[in-house]
Amino acid sequence: MMHPNDPELRSFVDVEPDGDFPIQNLPYGVFSTGSAPQKRVGVAIGSLVLDLAVLEQEGMINLGTSEAVFAQPSLNAFMALGPEIWSATRKRISTLLRHDQPELRDNAKLRQRALLPLDQVVTHLPLAVAGFTDFYSSKEHATNVGVMFRGKDNALQPNWLHMPIGYNGRASTVVVSGTPVRRPRGQVKPPGADAPSFGPCKRLDFELEMGVVVGQPSTMGKMLTEVEAEAMIFGFVLLNDWSARDIQQWEYVPLGPFQAKAFATSISPWIVTREALEPFRTKGPAQSPEPLEYLRQTGDNNYDLRLDVDLQAGDGRAARICSTNFKYMYWSSVQQLVHHASSGCAMSVGDLLGSGTISGPEKHQRGSLLEISWGGSEPIALPGGDTRTFLEDGDTLSIRGWCRNDRYRLGFGEVAGRILPPD
Amino acid sequence: MMHPNDPELRSFVDVEPDGDFPIQNLPYGVFSTGSAPQKRVGVAIGSLVLDLAVLEQEGMINLGTSEAVFAQPSLNAFMALGPEIWSATRKRISTLLRHDQPELRDNAKLRQRALLPLDQVVTHLPLAVAGFTDFYSSKEHATNVGVMFRGKDNALQPNWLHMPIGYNGRASTVVVSGTPVRRPRGQVKPPGADAPSFGPCKRLDFELEMGVVVGQPSTMGKMLTEVEAEAMIFGFVLLNDWSARDIQQWEYVPLGPFQAKAFATSISPWIVTREALEPFRTKGPAQSPEPLEYLRQTGDNNYDLRLDVDLQAGDGRAARICSTNFKYMYWSSVQQLVHHASSGCAMSVGDLLGSGTISGPEKHQRGSLLEISWGGSEPIALPGGDTRTFLEDGDTLSIRGWCRNDRYRLGFGEVAGRILPPD
Repeated sequence: MMHPNDPELRSFVDVEPDGDFPIQNLPYGVFSTGSAPQKRVGVAIGSLVLDLAVLEQEGMINLGTSEAVFAQPSLNAFMALGPEIWSATRKRISTLLRHDQPELRDNAKLRQRALLPLDQVVTHLPLAVAGFTDFYSSKEHATNVGVMFRGKDNALQPNWLHMPIGYNGRASTVVVSGTPVRRPRGQVKPPGADAPSFGPCKRLDFELEMGVVVGQPSTMGKMLTEVEAEAMIFGFVLLNDWSARDIQQWEYVPLGPFQAKAFATSISPWIVTREALEPFRTKGPAQSPEPLEYLRQTGDNNYDLRLDVDLQAGDGRAARICSTNFKYMYWSSVQQLVHHASSGCAMSVGDLLGSGTISGPEKHQRGSLLEISWGGSEPIALPGGDTRTFLEDGDTLSIRGWCRNDRYRLGFGEVAGRILPPD
Repeated sequence: MMHPNDPELRSFVDVEPDGDFPIQNLPYGVFSTGSAPQKRVGVAIGSLVLDLAVLEQEGMINLGTSEAVFAQPSLNAFMALGPEIWSATRKRISTLLRHDQPELRDNAKLRQRALLPLDQVVTHLPLAVAGFTDFYSSKEHATNVGVMFRGKDNALQPNWLHMPIGYNGRASTVVVSGTPVRRPRGQVKPPGADAPSFGPCKRLDFELEMGVVVGQPSTMGKMLTEVEAEAMIFGFVLLNDWSARDIQQWEYVPLGPFQAKAFATSISPWIVTREALEPFRTKGPAQSPEPLEYLRQTGDNNYDLRLDVDLQAGDGRAARICSTNFKYMYWSSVQQLVHHASSGCAMSVGDLLGSGTISGPEKHQRGSLLEISWGGSEPIALPGGDTRTFLEDGDTLSIRGWCRNDRYRLGFGEVAGRILPPD
């Protein structure tokens, strides 16, 4: 049997050469349709969705359990089954979709029920988010922010090079791509003001991140090894950690960001599995000083994954405002997960870990408007003559991500959100 | 019908005069027994538990739904029904337990099934914790910590008097009283060390807090008024926010506490309802400067609730190390909840909000060992000649809380946990 990542594989479903969802991808999502509004699990292939609840019901996928795993409003039940089932299921789906396998290909009636046009389905949040943790693991991003706030000589905090710095975020406001984002209100104290005031955020920003979806739990009181942590990772999504810079500035000492990040976090609808990303593994930046033993890694735990950010003012033409790569992250997702559990913190099925803003060494690789407009001092030009320092009502921010080798391209789709005025 | 808070009410179940659970209390919890291991909802009365799943099954409590609400492993399904049902159910339970009502009192068979000795049941986490947020709202605690770290003149951060400062904690490690707590490992950099190291926490502490249980959701993008926030509060528990001071010291800049607080948070098993606490409402400290409009409150949102902390070394005699009162909190739970939703952050059924460490103006009212031992510089004496600055393996820390008027006493039981060495 060919491995699901084999570049020779072809599907009977057409895939455009520059499409996100070739047979080597098979990302999982949750969807519904107008005529069948119950949420269920599917896999994206070409411009179609394969309805796994139908295949499960027909007995064409056997997960070794009598419970419905795919006729569910989230992927959590499937994720809970563990890495061996993830792998076996991906193999089975890959086989069913192959151009040379007749089982699904030649069953017109089943194809009609199980393969639906992507543009006719509604995608939903693919997981029930158990906990949302946000890291701060790009050295370039942390340095840029540090230079702005503390000057060049104290840019990185003393702890930054020794561990993946992170904080617990708010799980209840993680939303799927396409969900409009209301400009938050909050308490601010602008420079020079005598007293704080409360009102709509004036420095609304995005943060370009990847999200790790944790698919297996860990035991309270137990640490994780690199190998254990990696096996717990189900997959990855694009993530936009919307941020209210003015609220953050006033509230964050000494306990960190709270309301400035609590109003919304958007993710892409399709979870690209860790297994599908295997061919795109790469080494991260050299880590110096050498991490403490519990954080050392032997594997190449970064990914060569291109990321683009577009900003569209109202209904105007979009401007590309950032092009960077996930490979620049100083601390890998595996190191983040190992650190997260290092105190004995139990990890849960459905935990979502934001990588932290992904900036790169070049100016066009900065992953937030705070960095792009250098704290609001360098407005960027948009097509049509508009300029921006931070996001305005009506703006749409979209992030796309993909990997490519000389044989195929594998994409994440997008995470997009439009800014609404405060309610 | 007499109100369930009426001091004249008496139950046919005996209640010791100094017991925690008179008929005016009726706190909710989740329990199981050796012979019936499925978790279900009960109410504590005297030294018994009333099994609500039995009463529901017998049709003696009507919640207007055909779903099982009490034959559930958490209170979330009941809480989701809303404040009118909470109130009506409490009235009904109060009536069933009255000394002058025969329905349950004279049904010996039912009494035997529905009333179980408290000391023969296992209590479990009473709610599925959706999100755990921890505040920092005692002025005395924030000042004590500030003086230790920054000196008297800069003790309170500039934002502290203007809003309830808080951060998102870790929901996955909230455990019920009695669960042993493993000493966490973590990265630390002691004063004078050249480089950080990783190992068992050396400054393990407790934090005396109350926990608010949020029983109703709010809508993403919407703020809450004082009245709306109050109606969402289902009840209160005792809460111990275990803290690793040395890990916290090294990790917390700039994103706040993370692994230092992630390893365990303990709560008491019985949720005392907001309604039962009504007779003990009191004004909080005067707030100056006057809070911004969205945070202003008209009601007395503090509670006169006495809190005691005992520390027991090994199997030795316990020492009372703190006696304080919930009424000292500068920011009320209602103000915390209003602020939490102020950015548009959606609140969920089952959110748990820690009040922050509750210290008082006097030295014996300090709610953490950090304050009691003044950063480790003033060891406290224990019975038998031992001393402590921070917690040692084998120590048991317990918190008790109660309200009292001239007619009855209403208690929370306790939250206790024993420290185990690292795994």
